[in-house]
Amino acid sequence: MRADTAAAQRIRTAERLYDALAGGDRETIDVLLAPDFVGHAAAGMPLNMGGTHVGVEAMCTELWWRIGKHFTARAVPAEFQEFTDGRLTVIGSYRGRARTSGAELDAAFVHILEFDSEGRIAALHQLTDTAAWHAALEGSGPPATIDYRVEDGVATICLNRPEQRNAIDLQMGRDTLEVARRVASDRTVRAVLICGNGPALTVGGDISYFLDGRAEQFGDLFRAMTAPFHEGFEILSRIDAPIVTAAHGAVAGGGLGYVYAADIVVAADDARFVTAFAGIGLSGDGGGTYHLPRLIGPRRAAAAYLRNTPISAAEALEWGLVNEVVPTAEVRDRASAIARELAHGPTVAFATMRALLRDTWRHDLPTQFAAESRGIKLTGDSRDAAGAIAAFANKQRPTFEGR
Amino acid sequence: MRADTAAAQRIRTAERLYDALAGGDRETIDVLLAPDFVGHAAAGMPLNMGGTHVGVEAMCTELWWRIGKHFTARAVPAEFQEFTDGRLTVIGSYRGRARTSGAELDAAFVHILEFDSEGRIAALHQLTDTAAWHAALEGSGPPATIDYRVEDGVATICLNRPEQRNAIDLQMGRDTLEVARRVASDRTVRAVLICGNGPALTVGGDISYFLDGRAEQFGDLFRAMTAPFHEGFEILSRIDAPIVTAAHGAVAGGGLGYVYAADIVVAADDARFVTAFAGIGLSGDGGGTYHLPRLIGPRRAAAAYLRNTPISAAEALEWGLVNEVVPTAEVRDRASAIARELAHGPTVAFATMRALLRDTWRHDLPTQFAAESRGIKLTGDSRDAAGAIAAFANKQRPTFEGR
Amino acid sequence: MRADTAAAQRIRTAERLYDALAGGDRETIDVLLAPDFVGHAAAGMPLNMGGTHVGVEAMCTELWWRIGKHFTARAVPAEFQEFTDGRLTVIGSYRGRARTSGAELDAAFVHILEFDSEGRIAALHQLTDTAAWHAALEGSGPPATIDYRVEDGVATICLNRPEQRNAIDLQMGRDTLEVARRVASDRTVRAVLICGNGPALTVGGDISYFLDGRAEQFGDLFRAMTAPFHEGFEILSRIDAPIVTAAHGAVAGGGLGYVYAADIVVAADDARFVTAFAGIGLSGDGGGTYHLPRLIGPRRAAAAYLRNTPISAAEALEWGLVNEVVPTAEVRDRASAIARELAHGPTVAFATMRALLRDTWRHDLPTQFAAESRGIKLTGDSRDAAGAIAAFANKQRPTFEGR
Repeated sequence: MRADTAAAQRIRTAERLYDALAGGDRETIDVLLAPDFVGHAAAGMPLNMGGTHVGVEAMCTELWWRIGKHFTARAVPAEFQEFTDGRLTVIGSYRGRARTSGAELDAAFVHILEFDSEGRIAALHQLTDTAAWHAALEGSGPPATIDYRVEDGVATICLNRPEQRNAIDLQMGRDTLEVARRVASDRTVRAVLICGNGPALTVGGDISYFLDGRAEQFGDLFRAMTAPFHEGFEILSRIDAPIVTAAHGAVAGGGLGYVYAADIVVAADDARFVTAFAGIGLSGDGGGTYHLPRLIGPRRAAAAYLRNTPISAAEALEWGLVNEVVPTAEVRDRASAIARELAHGPTVAFATMRALLRDTWRHDLPTQFAAESRGIKLTGDSRDAAGAIAAFANKQRPTFEGR
Repeated sequence: MRADTAAAQRIRTAERLYDALAGGDRETIDVLLAPDFVGHAAAGMPLNMGGTHVGVEAMCTELWWRIGKHFTARAVPAEFQEFTDGRLTVIGSYRGRARTSGAELDAAFVHILEFDSEGRIAALHQLTDTAAWHAALEGSGPPATIDYRVEDGVATICLNRPEQRNAIDLQMGRDTLEVARRVASDRTVRAVLICGNGPALTVGGDISYFLDGRAEQFGDLFRAMTAPFHEGFEILSRIDAPIVTAAHGAVAGGGLGYVYAADIVVAADDARFVTAFAGIGLSGDGGGTYHLPRLIGPRRAAAAYLRNTPISAAEALEWGLVNEVVPTAEVRDRASAIARELAHGPTVAFATMRALLRDTWRHDLPTQFAAESRGIKLTGDSRDAAGAIAAFANKQRPTFEGR
Repeated sequence: MRADTAAAQRIRTAERLYDALAGGDRETIDVLLAPDFVGHAAAGMPLNMGGTHVGVEAMCTELWWRIGKHFTARAVPAEFQEFTDGRLTVIGSYRGRARTSGAELDAAFVHILEFDSEGRIAALHQLTDTAAWHAALEGSGPPATIDYRVEDGVATICLNRPEQRNAIDLQMGRDTLEVARRVASDRTVRAVLICGNGPALTVGGDISYFLDGRAEQFGDLFRAMTAPFHEGFEILSRIDAPIVTAAHGAVAGGGLGYVYAADIVVAADDARFVTAFAGIGLSGDGGGTYHLPRLIGPRRAAAAYLRNTPISAAEALEWGLVNEVVPTAEVRDRASAIARELAHGPTVAFATMRALLRDTWRHDLPTQFAAESRGIKLTGDSRDAAGAIAAFANKQRPTFEGR
């Protein structure tokens, strides 16, 4: 057997191992591993998984099955490198979620595999980002500050710190990122509803969080809060499903981000939108300097920022910040009804429309014409378009499956 | 005579031939061609022009004069290449229009010229895109679906499938491109009026066109329809003359493009604007994802796209989609009056304003200041500005000639 | 002493000289200069400062003190280069203002310094852009057409050609640049008020200025007027302090630039906004093609440009061109009150908001999120934020110092 063939064979063996681990396929594992196999797991692994495991049985029960019990993760190899002595280095990452917390796991690993003379794996040395494992177990989830659920294709993101009028602390910033990731990775989601429990959608950043801090750290603290919060909104800007926000009571500061993130906004007649940043000497976050000038024009956006001028529900409607105003008691139901309606719509077309409407601001007209042509080709080829055109021919109402 | 000089002489002879052909100058042709000249026209040429023509007289009557009878085209050489045996290859294209259809001809050619010992052209072998010749003869025009005319500096583009409420089929897409090209190439046009015959400006894409198609071809069909349609609107976005659209009845789907293309829009009180794409699972065309967020704001544009929310004439006025609302019976007259008014305006300034307002979205403020400075230099040097400033000094009303 | 050490020493001596000159520190000058020092000032210097000055005393009284009497400028060295013979070349510029005119001085210089054996400066040869010195003395100011003053942190820019209804001639264009520079360089300015004396804010470009000109020069004349005018508005777009404009009576043509430059606009109920350019065959200046489509939408902007459609105060409010409409008699007071309010606000946050709102149009959403995060770090670290958060904790009203 030539050297290169042997190396290819070892890589194939490693690949089969990762497949067998992903499938929990003990039978194949027994074939691939040498009888005298020894595994060395990273010392810092949680749940007593770290250290040396002698024998295939020990490796399975003490490491691999235990991972499977606590995580939905799998080891995803990205690169195979052959040592000259025949050992194989595999670089990749464990990806998935912790089962209890629901939090994401994305932990880099390096595996060093040794082989016996028959090409079986004789040893596995695991190095991995063990902190990521611990963090995933502790998790942000289930999100502490957001009530998240998916029903009938509608993902509901309900801000849930009602006593604090849904003031945004670091946890809520992280939870916003977490639920955005869940929405993005859940292909059953065809519409999103954003709302808030209690008397207000959200009064914005929780300033009380800073009152114990030292003034010289404020900049870094604000920035740290902003990071997951902004990342969550960036993800929401790229999802396929349309977003409906129900805005009621005070909607202030960074909390306006939940309004900007939406395609469709239903406002309660008691809704009051205010940037509030100037009041504490800050420039603002949540994407308002992007969205507000485009939504209500530069002049009104300047007043909202520089003078903290509140925007009433009626003004928000007149100026194009919201689509409808309804009595406060009805706002959640109305927004929910629209979200359900959208969840029965042509999701491929919605995703394309959302992308076109999002990217339009950096395109000139010819570029946008070209993007629309690509979009109409893409959506014209969708099953939903075929069904709708057939329904049109038969004078029937179309049914959209979201594909 | 040295080789390079001989080659230069042959090229000069060829150039003189193309000039003579353009001018119909038989006398020069007789000088340039050898008495025993033989021409070989591409076999696929229409009107029995293809095949071998023996002698100068035959070549003129059977090919060249016949081209002139049916086309306004001329052969435009772009490149001359010398063979080592003394033959000359000329690469270029026939450009112009078919007389009957009015359709554009743009057909690539390769001519291979042979010379006799006295430097006269002894033979011409013509290869050309004969399909383009046939297409131009069949033409899209006079446009079948659009009534196009130019009077007193106003080009009227009137959609003319009234029984189909001006539904846009492939022909109307092509006709839109065709009339856009006519407007762009006609220097007498100083304003454009877009309107529609029948009960509606246009209900958008003609879905019945697709009902015979196979679903797996829909994407390609939609894209094919969109191509000339978008090209037409791109051309209209770059013309000098301002555009006025009269919008009445249903204005739907891609048909909204005729509204977006305008500078000034007069709406009838029965006008109703609806994107309609979501209803058949498509993402949309006609430039709406470019124009609508800029015209009425991202929030209302999202509702128009995702929820198919119709926009009434009153909302269109309030939101800045149209400039005026008038009774339906008056909409054409009113739009026509504005177009005539603009046709008497300072066309150079209008063209510059249109370019500035079109390009502003991709410019930052310093870039736009610089563009405005170039524009004021350009228009300040126009005759119309000079005349208007003189009229101002004499307390007279200016007369603008459009230059 | 090694060569490189000697060179470093000479540079240090030169640096000390520039510091001593900036501070008027004669004692140090006497230490640094050789007793037999000779200075050679550029021949073209104004106020008889040019030529050779023998001795330290002569150099001080005939050049340096005289500069100090007429200018607030200092010599700012940018680069030091050692000749192999031990001479030192210093490249830099004189920067400041002429005292009488208030005009800016920015004059490049090259100084060649010779040293004696003890390391003292034995000679100084000065070359400088003497035209810049003369221009600064003649100056554009005090601005002839604009009443400019700074009180309690508010810079007032009051157009002051009331008999000409503040028509903008070349002088007012230059004065606009001059006051913009003053605002930009005055760190006590925390808000700007723009207003006009007489019956109108400004009727736009002073056409009478052109009536004596030759038509073939109009383009160049308009461009020359536009240059300082646009540069002034560019500077105002980048200053930290927010800008409030009081608009009354006619606001026309390029004069609309004073409205576009503002963050907050208070309009008198008699205000009437009209582009006016089409009336004299021009395409327009003052930034309107940048601002107007963003402020009131492309459709209304097109009508304002192509049809000269005037915009009433009520429409301006409804469309987002202005923030408030008040009776004409109150417009200056109201705008002034807002400017004073803003002058007591968090200037660092205002500057950051202004930059974010200005640059948003060329950013996509992720870029703007990143810019907001940088902004919240920057402003979170400001003293004003620290004070406001402390005041919030103590349920007190914050006091902002603008830093």
